[in-house]
Amino acid sequence: MKNTFGNNVSVTLFGESHGAAVGAVIDGLPAGVNVDESFISHQLDLRRPIGKISTPRHEADKFSIVSGVFNGKTTGTPICVLIPNENTKSGDYSKKYGKARPGHADYTAYVKYNGCEDYRGGGHFSGRITAGLVAAGAIAVDLLKNKGIYIGTHIKKCAGVNDEPFTDYKKDTELLSVAQFPVLGEAAKNEMISAIEKAAEEGDSVGGVLETAVTGVPVGVGEPWFDSVESVIAHALFSIPAIKGVEFGAGFGCADMRGSQMNDEFKLENGAITTKTNNNGGINGGIANGMPIIFSCAVKPTPSISKTQNTVDFISGEEVSLSVSGRHDPCIVHRARVVVDSIAAITLCDLLSQKFGTDWLV
Amino acid sequence: MKNTFGNNVSVTLFGESHGAAVGAVIDGLPAGVNVDESFISHQLDLRRPIGKISTPRHEADKFSIVSGVFNGKTTGTPICVLIPNENTKSGDYSKKYGKARPGHADYTAYVKYNGCEDYRGGGHFSGRITAGLVAAGAIAVDLLKNKGIYIGTHIKKCAGVNDEPFTDYKKDTELLSVAQFPVLGEAAKNEMISAIEKAAEEGDSVGGVLETAVTGVPVGVGEPWFDSVESVIAHALFSIPAIKGVEFGAGFGCADMRGSQMNDEFKLENGAITTKTNNNGGINGGIANGMPIIFSCAVKPTPSISKTQNTVDFISGEEVSLSVSGRHDPCIVHRARVVVDSIAAITLCDLLSQKFGTDWLV
Amino acid sequence: MKNTFGNNVSVTLFGESHGAAVGAVIDGLPAGVNVDESFISHQLDLRRPIGKISTPRHEADKFSIVSGVFNGKTTGTPICVLIPNENTKSGDYSKKYGKARPGHADYTAYVKYNGCEDYRGGGHFSGRITAGLVAAGAIAVDLLKNKGIYIGTHIKKCAGVNDEPFTDYKKDTELLSVAQFPVLGEAAKNEMISAIEKAAEEGDSVGGVLETAVTGVPVGVGEPWFDSVESVIAHALFSIPAIKGVEFGAGFGCADMRGSQMNDEFKLENGAITTKTNNNGGINGGIANGMPIIFSCAVKPTPSISKTQNTVDFISGEEVSLSVSGRHDPCIVHRARVVVDSIAAITLCDLLSQKFGTDWLV
Amino acid sequence: MKNTFGNNVSVTLFGESHGAAVGAVIDGLPAGVNVDESFISHQLDLRRPIGKISTPRHEADKFSIVSGVFNGKTTGTPICVLIPNENTKSGDYSKKYGKARPGHADYTAYVKYNGCEDYRGGGHFSGRITAGLVAAGAIAVDLLKNKGIYIGTHIKKCAGVNDEPFTDYKKDTELLSVAQFPVLGEAAKNEMISAIEKAAEEGDSVGGVLETAVTGVPVGVGEPWFDSVESVIAHALFSIPAIKGVEFGAGFGCADMRGSQMNDEFKLENGAITTKTNNNGGINGGIANGMPIIFSCAVKPTPSISKTQNTVDFISGEEVSLSVSGRHDPCIVHRARVVVDSIAAITLCDLLSQKFGTDWLV
Repeated sequence: MKNTFGNNVSVTLFGESHGAAVGAVIDGLPAGVNVDESFISHQLDLRRPIGKISTPRHEADKFSIVSGVFNGKTTGTPICVLIPNENTKSGDYSKKYGKARPGHADYTAYVKYNGCEDYRGGGHFSGRITAGLVAAGAIAVDLLKNKGIYIGTHIKKCAGVNDEPFTDYKKDTELLSVAQFPVLGEAAKNEMISAIEKAAEEGDSVGGVLETAVTGVPVGVGEPWFDSVESVIAHALFSIPAIKGVEFGAGFGCADMRGSQMNDEFKLENGAITTKTNNNGGINGGIANGMPIIFSCAVKPTPSISKTQNTVDFISGEEVSLSVSGRHDPCIVHRARVVVDSIAAITLCDLLSQKFGTDWLV
Repeated sequence: MKNTFGNNVSVTLFGESHGAAVGAVIDGLPAGVNVDESFISHQLDLRRPIGKISTPRHEADKFSIVSGVFNGKTTGTPICVLIPNENTKSGDYSKKYGKARPGHADYTAYVKYNGCEDYRGGGHFSGRITAGLVAAGAIAVDLLKNKGIYIGTHIKKCAGVNDEPFTDYKKDTELLSVAQFPVLGEAAKNEMISAIEKAAEEGDSVGGVLETAVTGVPVGVGEPWFDSVESVIAHALFSIPAIKGVEFGAGFGCADMRGSQMNDEFKLENGAITTKTNNNGGINGGIANGMPIIFSCAVKPTPSISKTQNTVDFISGEEVSLSVSGRHDPCIVHRARVVVDSIAAITLCDLLSQKFGTDWLV
Repeated sequence: MKNTFGNNVSVTLFGESHGAAVGAVIDGLPAGVNVDESFISHQLDLRRPIGKISTPRHEADKFSIVSGVFNGKTTGTPICVLIPNENTKSGDYSKKYGKARPGHADYTAYVKYNGCEDYRGGGHFSGRITAGLVAAGAIAVDLLKNKGIYIGTHIKKCAGVNDEPFTDYKKDTELLSVAQFPVLGEAAKNEMISAIEKAAEEGDSVGGVLETAVTGVPVGVGEPWFDSVESVIAHALFSIPAIKGVEFGAGFGCADMRGSQMNDEFKLENGAITTKTNNNGGINGGIANGMPIIFSCAVKPTPSISKTQNTVDFISGEEVSLSVSGRHDPCIVHRARVVVDSIAAITLCDLLSQKFGTDWLV
Repeated sequence: MKNTFGNNVSVTLFGESHGAAVGAVIDGLPAGVNVDESFISHQLDLRRPIGKISTPRHEADKFSIVSGVFNGKTTGTPICVLIPNENTKSGDYSKKYGKARPGHADYTAYVKYNGCEDYRGGGHFSGRITAGLVAAGAIAVDLLKNKGIYIGTHIKKCAGVNDEPFTDYKKDTELLSVAQFPVLGEAAKNEMISAIEKAAEEGDSVGGVLETAVTGVPVGVGEPWFDSVESVIAHALFSIPAIKGVEFGAGFGCADMRGSQMNDEFKLENGAITTKTNNNGGINGGIANGMPIIFSCAVKPTPSISKTQNTVDFISGEEVSLSVSGRHDPCIVHRARVVVDSIAAITLCDLLSQKFGTDWLV
């Protein structure tokens, strides 16, 4: 379905960048799950722009829970979270309609929607839509923690700078859960921020790779074929407009490996079956094998740049040049992180409840 | 759904490696589509093992169309294709039950299915299941050609050897559609085959990357968010057990690019809007922009290798060593190609009919 | 899915009777469809309580369209309609928690949701949730009219009083579309209203049957098996809490007919193929045959009555007696009418776009 | 989806009356469920024609389980059951193509499928397709018995003759499970059979009503709105071509009741909460309340009758008359019974696993 994903636990997105509000409906969570509004705010904060490396558009992100929560707990019926748009400057956008911003959906939206699309600030294609996803996902992230399932994402690479790898999933995940700029190495952080600022000064933008670890998923969750853990997580990740690649475990690196290197040998560890390496990213045959589920996604450089670009005006039918002014992010990698965490949480709730039932989640 | 994917056009898979048969049901294709059985055979041939670089298990792959085809055309109702398993040697497998083959789903299946899984030859996790997908997909591949939509996949990289890039999509796609070992450069082919044979001799296996181009998809197909072209194709690709990464256009390469490099500038070409580069892989905001849709997927080295590996016997609970004998492929990258084409065709039929209706497909 | 229905065109419901708001997200409608807010208001008015035969709870039903509409037209992305709850008197309800109202979902909700349900005014089980459905459905009703597809529902029977049958679908449908109490015979109307008032005076309530006609659906829409016109419409109708029966054409009457009576003979009418009778309700083999689609649904008497009833207090575990005070409808048949129309419109949009594509709807 | 229904547990149908085979794929059942082939045969026997009141076409119904069963148990992966068509006389049908049989899908199929439909014996619209559903459903029926959930259906009414009502669900359900002609009263049986034979002699056919009771479903299964027990069961029932009405509990009878009659008062029985009456058919607010789930469906008289009927030849475009010869059933009510049971079992498996997980089913 277009804006709904999931079966037992599903999420529906709506809203436009400069409309009245963005929001999400999360359905299928059992009754009795604690809903910590301060944690939702915290997650929304992690998505917010910071300093010089982000857009100057600052949204209060004051969400309201319209339904599905009663006395601080889920009622078991759909939870609608609404986040009004406040700091909109639509004047910025309307004049430029027709000039297809390269890397954006202006042109495809125009063709698809016959010129009826809400073009202001990217409309329904805007990253702003992810605010609803993050608010809904916060409930799922929190719920999974209570079941011993932890999700953590760091910037593996940004603007050509590499972060340190995960060393201690438990500690690292805790650290990342409160970091506004989520890296594991302090040096990498400074280098990345410098590189982002440099690109911004040059009227340009940068991309990066996010790497996520999920620990505590029971062996046996997921399915061969179309409900494989990889299929379901990748489906949702690729719905984020900026994501252009997803890989699990060694991912594309496996192309240069031999089977004897790629295969994760099994061993016993305190009586439990585990693997020596984790090139398969915690998944064998689509099913969680008890190791951390590891995946990475490639985030493209923000397409909005002030550097002059050539393009076409699809209204006048002429070639034109364009400098995207307005308020933009030179980098969204760090802001996308909590979106990825939210997606991981929601999709895993769905897969877990397929096997164990939604009642299990509470 | 576990073994069903798609809405307007959907596919359902069933079967085990050493059961009576494998097969697929493709539903939602309109009535009146030509069903060319020789083309189905041709596609199944492309999936078949070849020479020393494949398993010695040879299956006749004599398919039968059980339903949905009448007088050589689709009837508009579900098409079930059945492919009997003939050359099965289940004795090879039963004795080894319990010894988890590294990189395989033996252990996860055991936990998930409580020891009731059909473990012979990988059961429902076997690549053999893709034969049904290829047979069903052949009808979709053929149908799309009649609508001017062409799909071609080459081995971008295998065993550390790189192929030439696409130069002329039309010609290249035609060439690939009949190549048993699908590469664009003759030299690359020989190098790859040598490297595969070398790995085989050493009791090992190799992986690779497949790159696919789809031309002719109308602008406007696909959706923002959960029915994005990327989401739907990646979902289905990640259901193939060996796929560990999927990327569109520049993919993970975008992490090292600036926005000014990654953005595909629009231009006019004979009055039509097109882009100068194709780093976004023909997709903006989840929607086809008229450029070729380009994606790559990482195929891991076949986990079955004869080299001795350490593992655990999950029945006895002991650490053991293991050499996977039996009949195995040192490389499945070339065989996976037609599976990828089939997936692309089926998912695109679904997305096309969302916008234009299933009637449009005929 | 729990609160989402449809594939190409889908609707998602949320809200509770005494929460902040109720609402719906309708997704999949193409861009460029006129959204007439006064028609939405009109439809919501048809759902509103009237005079002595309805609850004294009066809600302004001031809806706001949060997303998906721009410059008075659909944008092609999800439309979220929000209807705040204003006239809530939750004090009425909280004291009685535990005393299971017969015919209501109090007890099943308590067990299902472990006591975390929002019990105020029936929570998510309340007929109030249908306000969102009606607002979203109004857009679909209006859209279909532009495609020549008209939907009309009358009270076939209420409180033991029968209405006149449809005689001229075009005229009747027009008449019904503006009637607050939708009957075809003036005498029936007065009798029904008297009977409802009588029941109300006696602290009781009444039920009835709604009959719907849909004209203009093209031959060939719908599917054999699970996407039959009957399946899809009935699925959505049975989600309305008060509906206990659905039948198409002659419905249960067919049990007493011979095949020679039930079969609708085909004939030519001005060169077009049509049928002499319409016992099959415009559907053969799950597919529209060009005749009006006719279905009826049974609406049970409102379970909230002030007459004393015996029941169980599921908190104290004791048998108790109960008189449901608060604000209730002695009859909801007339108010349910526009809900039925909305459901018919949304489900038909989905079936039409399966065959013709969502683009066809504009 | 067209020929697939269900989420956690789903069924996919395929086949035509005179094609190679009919069949079904049931997916999502957990591993380790006993598959009793003799019980599948038994269920198929209940669907078979009997004596003078059925078609003389006798199919051996020798099914083969193609996948998903290993060592007599489910493997947890899709189970494909295949039932070859043997006794086909396609000559009977081809000559008559064009003459739309009243009450059949000949004309709608012709329009929908552009003349490419498999018209032999009704093709994919044939009741023969239900053989696959019954075979797949048998596994679900059997599985539920092991969980204490029993399903029984009797002919409530046929050819104007009424059966006795359920008196003791346990006993009655056992009795019905082995009755070829499923009635609760011996007198009713003889009267019904006489009436059917009489209609047959007159070249006509009869319809009826089936009533089903399901006992043992835990309180709390099902959902408000679109996954209500009523919605899900009715959706699947209305996919059976002959079903024209579905009602739960008092059903259409509720239209003539007052709330004080319709409401099922709660009481304590050995400490458990139960209801005095069961007018709501065991469902409140879409959710099972622990009472037997009771529903009825109207089965129309078989449209194939030898009496002469008027119709149109959609090929020649002329009005013609028609006597349907060939091999037909004067009544299918008794044969439809086991189809209804199968549908009840499959849909309940899906609803149960939504709440409790598929693992619970084993």
